[in-house]
Amino acid sequence: MVDIAPKFNALLVFIEHRFYGDSMPFGNNSYKSAKTLGYLNSQQALADYAVLIRSLKQNLSSDSSPVVVFGGSYGGMLAAWFRLKYPHIAIGAVASSAPILQFDKITPWSSFYDAVSQDFKDASLNCYKVIKGSWAELDALSTHDDGLIEVSKLFRTCKALHSVYSARDWLWEAFVYTAMVNYPTEANFMMPLPAYPVEEMCKIIDGLPKGASKLSKAFAAASLYYNYTQTEKCFNLEGGTDSHGLHGWDWQACTEMVMPMTCSNESMFPPSSFSYKEFSQDCKKQYGVKPRPHWITTEFGGYRIEQVLKRFGSNMIFSNGMQDPWSRGGVLKNISSSIVALVTQKGAHHVDFRSETKNDPDWLIMQRKQEVAIIEKWLEEYYKDLKQN
Amino acid sequence: MVDIAPKFNALLVFIEHRFYGDSMPFGNNSYKSAKTLGYLNSQQALADYAVLIRSLKQNLSSDSSPVVVFGGSYGGMLAAWFRLKYPHIAIGAVASSAPILQFDKITPWSSFYDAVSQDFKDASLNCYKVIKGSWAELDALSTHDDGLIEVSKLFRTCKALHSVYSARDWLWEAFVYTAMVNYPTEANFMMPLPAYPVEEMCKIIDGLPKGASKLSKAFAAASLYYNYTQTEKCFNLEGGTDSHGLHGWDWQACTEMVMPMTCSNESMFPPSSFSYKEFSQDCKKQYGVKPRPHWITTEFGGYRIEQVLKRFGSNMIFSNGMQDPWSRGGVLKNISSSIVALVTQKGAHHVDFRSETKNDPDWLIMQRKQEVAIIEKWLEEYYKDLKQN
Repeated sequence: MVDIAPKFNALLVFIEHRFYGDSMPFGNNSYKSAKTLGYLNSQQALADYAVLIRSLKQNLSSDSSPVVVFGGSYGGMLAAWFRLKYPHIAIGAVASSAPILQFDKITPWSSFYDAVSQDFKDASLNCYKVIKGSWAELDALSTHDDGLIEVSKLFRTCKALHSVYSARDWLWEAFVYTAMVNYPTEANFMMPLPAYPVEEMCKIIDGLPKGASKLSKAFAAASLYYNYTQTEKCFNLEGGTDSHGLHGWDWQACTEMVMPMTCSNESMFPPSSFSYKEFSQDCKKQYGVKPRPHWITTEFGGYRIEQVLKRFGSNMIFSNGMQDPWSRGGVLKNISSSIVALVTQKGAHHVDFRSETKNDPDWLIMQRKQEVAIIEKWLEEYYKDLKQN
Repeated sequence: MVDIAPKFNALLVFIEHRFYGDSMPFGNNSYKSAKTLGYLNSQQALADYAVLIRSLKQNLSSDSSPVVVFGGSYGGMLAAWFRLKYPHIAIGAVASSAPILQFDKITPWSSFYDAVSQDFKDASLNCYKVIKGSWAELDALSTHDDGLIEVSKLFRTCKALHSVYSARDWLWEAFVYTAMVNYPTEANFMMPLPAYPVEEMCKIIDGLPKGASKLSKAFAAASLYYNYTQTEKCFNLEGGTDSHGLHGWDWQACTEMVMPMTCSNESMFPPSSFSYKEFSQDCKKQYGVKPRPHWITTEFGGYRIEQVLKRFGSNMIFSNGMQDPWSRGGVLKNISSSIVALVTQKGAHHVDFRSETKNDPDWLIMQRKQEVAIIEKWLEEYYKDLKQN
């Protein structure tokens, strides 16, 4: 956005989502209970954007300036939904890596972890197999008397672990996020990472001696994610603060943003199912409310989205990179002439929204050009309609 | 709807709006304060409809049955807005006499009373002049020592009046509602009325002796509205309960449904302006909240609706009868090939939604046929898309 804004003489406005960052509607009490947290939801956030954009345009005496909304990930969902619900405020939406179909039963629940696994399998079949086999080794260690000490040692933890699950979660996070950010150039999404980090991880695994344990190989691969800069002497696997700064997301996941996920037998993760009952009980316990698993699809749709939007809506770009596991819950096919899907095989989580670099591959340069051309068309039509009336 | 439902093998569902009728979310406390009344608004009502329709279809094992929403007046606004916000739930909307442009500064504030006046002027110029002159006579009487007694006598009130304003409001209501329901056949909208009641009122006025006062003529005309069946021996002008059953509307008008209205010098009513400040203070006093005059246009749009919806949205019928003063805040021009306006010069407030009678004029029969044909086209497209996927 920063790269293309000057081309459009555009003002860039980043609107903070209520209950995140500094936008606390009840100050320090915002997260106190369901009574206050009830105001943290996507519909109210969208309404905030509507009020803010309208008010801002009025203050700037630019009522007829067209507005295009951009977003990646959850922000991409919001961008798409904003265009659907507020077509009078935004002339178009660019929704990058927006898994708006990851709800209810639209997308198979196993697709996310299957996609992560596919990334690793594509890099190296051995790599995939090593990771897939590592969980059993970890489980086996956990039954040893001094298993925790062994795991702590193997994982080079700063403090002795209280639970083997910490090691599991630590590996898990490394593989999932590395798949998401499997970018073609060096990145610093949450951690600094090399270009195509999944391949790099697999090179590490494939390069280790045959005799080494699968778990030690998995650890070595995960270390790339946590310690690419080689500055960490030891790792804090437990009690870390939420590094993603999404402490409101837990609430949203327990109320509206219910995205059930399972691990199939084919994935490189231990097979697991999703129990709505258990999930619901956890939410009830933590927040005193029960999730509404059908709410998002009721409010924003999603089922048979091609048919619904074929004759409704316009001016939306859904961009997805197939390296990104979230892509499986995205819109991957054109819906109409003005609701288009831009899919790149080698792209990852909203890679198109990253700043231009001189190492960008051709497909990425091309994708961004397509996006600019589409936005230019929206603007052309907008100004044409404006003149005629 | 009752007439055409069998043609479509359709199930008719009338969904009651929250806070009206029996739908009291907090029982007897629903109207207690702004804390409970805060949940009475159009967005939450629309969300109710979405949840109810989806749940109903699931219970009836008819997930793929298409739904068309219908509404008249405020219900027509809701129908139009529902199609805009929930295109995945309703394949189309028939919005009759829906003044979705009566908000903010989209439609001139004087147009409503100008339209009422036009109805009477079209029936008879003398009639219009008599009514226009009657208010001054009432004002003059109010300055008399025994003015209230005189007015009570003239208006055949059951009890002596406490305020001349009651007579004014009584006349006012009769003229406004009669214009709204200026139907081509006998009606029983809120009161039983003859066909084309505005013409009948003006016949009464024009038939009275030249020497009679304008006020007495206005009273005689208004009597048609209140006593067409000639069963009333006297009239209760004061302390009547809200005959329109819209006790939630006051709250909505004081919060979101802000529709400023004025009387121009050309209208047959005493000229008046609209003071947002006064209105706001009244609302603050009554409910403890201030109105949001720009909210409806922020949430649902309305400004430049042709340009916005030209390339967005589909499958909507806006029907309006020009006799109806609300028509001036309606959509009176086609927006696109699938967002169409059906305008009848002799139609009144959602006349198309009344039951068929053998006296229906040709233009009304034709209008209803057009509506059925359009709905048939929506269904055809829906089933075609359904089959292809």
